[in-house]
Amino acid sequence: MAEAAARQDVIVGVDLGGTKILAGVFGAGLKCLATAKLSTKAERGYEAVVERIQRCVRDAIDEADLTVKQVRAVGIGAPGAVNPETGEVLFAPNLRWKDAPLGKDLAKLLDVPVFVENDGNVCALGVHEVEMEGKPRSLVGIFLGTGIGAGIILGGELHGGFNRTAGEVGHMVLDVGGPKCGCGNRGCFEALASRTAIFRELSDAIRDGAKSHLVDLLGPGEAITDLKSGDLRKALRKGDKLVQKVVEAAAEYTGIAIGNIINFLNPEVIVLGGGVMDALQDEMMAIIEATARDYAMTGTAEGIRIVPSKLGDKAGITGAAVLARRALKG
Amino acid sequence: MAEAAARQDVIVGVDLGGTKILAGVFGAGLKCLATAKLSTKAERGYEAVVERIQRCVRDAIDEADLTVKQVRAVGIGAPGAVNPETGEVLFAPNLRWKDAPLGKDLAKLLDVPVFVENDGNVCALGVHEVEMEGKPRSLVGIFLGTGIGAGIILGGELHGGFNRTAGEVGHMVLDVGGPKCGCGNRGCFEALASRTAIFRELSDAIRDGAKSHLVDLLGPGEAITDLKSGDLRKALRKGDKLVQKVVEAAAEYTGIAIGNIINFLNPEVIVLGGGVMDALQDEMMAIIEATARDYAMTGTAEGIRIVPSKLGDKAGITGAAVLARRALKG
Repeated sequence: MAEAAARQDVIVGVDLGGTKILAGVFGAGLKCLATAKLSTKAERGYEAVVERIQRCVRDAIDEADLTVKQVRAVGIGAPGAVNPETGEVLFAPNLRWKDAPLGKDLAKLLDVPVFVENDGNVCALGVHEVEMEGKPRSLVGIFLGTGIGAGIILGGELHGGFNRTAGEVGHMVLDVGGPKCGCGNRGCFEALASRTAIFRELSDAIRDGAKSHLVDLLGPGEAITDLKSGDLRKALRKGDKLVQKVVEAAAEYTGIAIGNIINFLNPEVIVLGGGVMDALQDEMMAIIEATARDYAMTGTAEGIRIVPSKLGDKAGITGAAVLARRALKG
Repeated sequence: MAEAAARQDVIVGVDLGGTKILAGVFGAGLKCLATAKLSTKAERGYEAVVERIQRCVRDAIDEADLTVKQVRAVGIGAPGAVNPETGEVLFAPNLRWKDAPLGKDLAKLLDVPVFVENDGNVCALGVHEVEMEGKPRSLVGIFLGTGIGAGIILGGELHGGFNRTAGEVGHMVLDVGGPKCGCGNRGCFEALASRTAIFRELSDAIRDGAKSHLVDLLGPGEAITDLKSGDLRKALRKGDKLVQKVVEAAAEYTGIAIGNIINFLNPEVIVLGGGVMDALQDEMMAIIEATARDYAMTGTAEGIRIVPSKLGDKAGITGAAVLARRALKG
């Protein structure tokens, strides 16, 4: 009976990214029982990606020695603007999706209720409820990866805003007329501190003749785009001056963005996560915090915590599971 | 009896600025019965300013043919960080105040309850409750004057944030490494689009030999700092190219700041007010709105209203009255 009751709490959380799909099976108390991973293959189009999400969910469930019938709900964090009421992904540039009925289509394939939210929102929800035990009244989660996403918790609840699109902190302009951003504007936070921005700066400098261990690491002629955040950490530990300069600049921009957020919204906690933070936390965190407190007005940052998330790449699947559990209770 | 009942609703709202004090007496239904104005004379020090606020309040009450005994409460918007629970002005750089017990001191002088809030918050409150009849669930009010202040309404209530300092939008960095701001940092919104910033740009250009009607308007040798926002409007109507360029740039920066706010917080309404807007609304509003919608991500700005306030320089006294009335109701 205890086992049957526990099984009724089984939820699958999915982190849908531009390059990979991660699914996690969560039991009672949001314990992670198993995970599975597949590449997204966005270039194959919407139907193919939905089919891959389904497969990834089934793989994770099988990994946990369970069956789909034992799963109560699936939550998904998607990289774009989402209508959580209909489960539609309204706009996801990295996937080239527009008005995609993801929730409905996946629910049909799995025969399980599916709940969809923006990925930044989902990550913030996971960090707030699981890592912070729901304690902070207000929290902004910033996730530095290929792009930069964020989620806002106010009064203990997700803040979606008027169009349910709040949290697009990656497109906060910090440097008018600065580097071109994927969104078409210039000088966005994402164009200054995402992995894409860091790699662009490194490529440009190496092309202009700057020295770096990255060249040896990759071998001559290799594109800098084949790098991972972990390669940057390796280069930094070898004392690579170029990588140090570029990573420190990204950390400073992140600090300025956080300073803006403290001045404007003044949340109790600011949490940092995402692939770039997971790989470069030791190198970036002190600069981020010092810069943020420098840019915050006198008295505004007192007692506000600026911390890295401990959930790492599980923030997305954890938050997606929280989302689905809340929706079921809702 | 009707008159006695009406008198019980009498509240005085005070707008305390760096250069002037404005007091308004409000009757039933927040009808403005009379106003009074005094210069602040901040250089004379804290006690002298408190004495002048008291005098301005008494002048306004007398102007309305009432006595202080008929006033139920006084609300004040102050230019700085405020603790509304104690009525203390924690930090007001323009007045050179630190930890000033304004609420307590003024209540002693007037023998009436006094409630204090940040001026941007108070203006946003006035616009939301009186001009918008409390309808928008979320609103950001941005006030362009000597500095730039703002107030945030979420769920129909003032959002103070963790340290009660939310709304410092004037110190949102838009142009890293840009013009020096009074706060010590560079490239803040306030250093790009406030009256101070506009006058700095004009002074610099005229010193460098640029032509402008402003020189004729002021006579040779006159400092550009003696200008008012209204002088800019006059110069614009004479076809002054320099003033047009500088004012348009300020409008663009304002639009970018609003784009950032739409992307990040996604409020239902963004209201613009303050001395610069009152004088230059016709010249700035179209550029502000077009720029904001351009910088907002696809789908995020849909249905969001970006509007000028109709309260003009009464936003502060009106909001201060709303503040006091709400505080009395508890």
